[in-house]
Amino acid sequence: MTSSASISLAVSTVIFALRTDERGVSSVWLPLVRRIREPHLDCWALPGGPVDAAESLESSARRNLLETTQLEPAYLEQLYAFGDVDRSPDRRVVSIVYWALVRADEAERVTAGENVRWFAADALPELAFDHNVIVDYALWRLRTKMEYSRIAQAFLGDQFTLAELRGVYEAVLQKPLDPANFRRQMESSGDVVATDEVVTGGRHRPPRLYRYVGDVQLVDAGPLTPRIPA
Amino acid sequence: MTSSASISLAVSTVIFALRTDERGVSSVWLPLVRRIREPHLDCWALPGGPVDAAESLESSARRNLLETTQLEPAYLEQLYAFGDVDRSPDRRVVSIVYWALVRADEAERVTAGENVRWFAADALPELAFDHNVIVDYALWRLRTKMEYSRIAQAFLGDQFTLAELRGVYEAVLQKPLDPANFRRQMESSGDVVATDEVVTGGRHRPPRLYRYVGDVQLVDAGPLTPRIPA
Repeated sequence: MTSSASISLAVSTVIFALRTDERGVSSVWLPLVRRIREPHLDCWALPGGPVDAAESLESSARRNLLETTQLEPAYLEQLYAFGDVDRSPDRRVVSIVYWALVRADEAERVTAGENVRWFAADALPELAFDHNVIVDYALWRLRTKMEYSRIAQAFLGDQFTLAELRGVYEAVLQKPLDPANFRRQMESSGDVVATDEVVTGGRHRPPRLYRYVGDVQLVDAGPLTPRIPA
Repeated sequence: MTSSASISLAVSTVIFALRTDERGVSSVWLPLVRRIREPHLDCWALPGGPVDAAESLESSARRNLLETTQLEPAYLEQLYAFGDVDRSPDRRVVSIVYWALVRADEAERVTAGENVRWFAADALPELAFDHNVIVDYALWRLRTKMEYSRIAQAFLGDQFTLAELRGVYEAVLQKPLDPANFRRQMESSGDVVATDEVVTGGRHRPPRLYRYVGDVQLVDAGPLTPRIPA
């Protein structure tokens, strides 16, 4: 008979948001927290902590996020359980990792300071534990999911211009996309449709707002959430 | 400060295989094991057990599978971590669930008996713990993944006839598919290509063997496995 008595359980969350620089180029950023205890004292790490015996995994993820970053993300999904034997130097820790995709207005709730800071996802320092591996995996999943789900909506809200949607794809895929080709592909895919609305603000030719069609799935939110029927 | 000292960690695995009845109708089956201790004594349950402190999560899944079912599946993927507070009646258990898709020749290794038995996935008895929810979730993931990955290959091996491939889709989607339409869809998808080989055995018009094209991804095998570049 084996025993798991000496394994600790933790949750961590990868939070992705998009930022656009002064040249109009979007990229993926994430907030990290500085560790204030050993191991890896002073290293940057994903927000997280131990699971309380009385809370579910998702509740634990949400509580840890709120405590460290003030975020209450609409999009929060379980990513993967990381359980390599030697991933923590002083004891065995299995981490259930969630990921959150947040809109710009949500991201503003994160108060950066000495112990919380935003980093570009493709230019991270050496993080605590296996957190670099975790972020790389989350980025790979983000790129993969863009191809078959309306995950971009998590960054944009319900309505968006095609230029905004293209910005999401450019940020995640890390390459510029031709605007005319992108428009053609999106319109022929049947995944997005034009609404009757345009961006307000007095421009001569205000861009039209689009939305995803109803039956494209946003996200696999796990087994206990109502889903769009297949 | 919260603590996870009282949370036990376990792994379980959902094993899916296909069976074809005497009318030629395929369906999804899975082997279950009878519990020989409380809680849920004598109930059928997914094969699994506690994670040993010295083994990784996947190693634990593989060891438990081998011990209970003699299976060493080629396709084994992490499915989800189930961590509801009340999922076990007597203590807090978080289960990392894997799923395995096995070919018919692999499935034959499972020696059914008093404590191991195959069940049709759509006609399960009431299982131990939340294992019915877990199987339903795995079936949903299987159906969803069929749409964007070559997951059917896990049931078939590298080469297969279009009739065999259609059988997989019919079993997973639980509905008959028109052979001519299916052939047209598969051939136009670009996902499968005809090989130069046919089924041997002396039939007058032996069916041609197909294979998936190289750049369709079989499976997300997790963050630590080499992947086909995007």
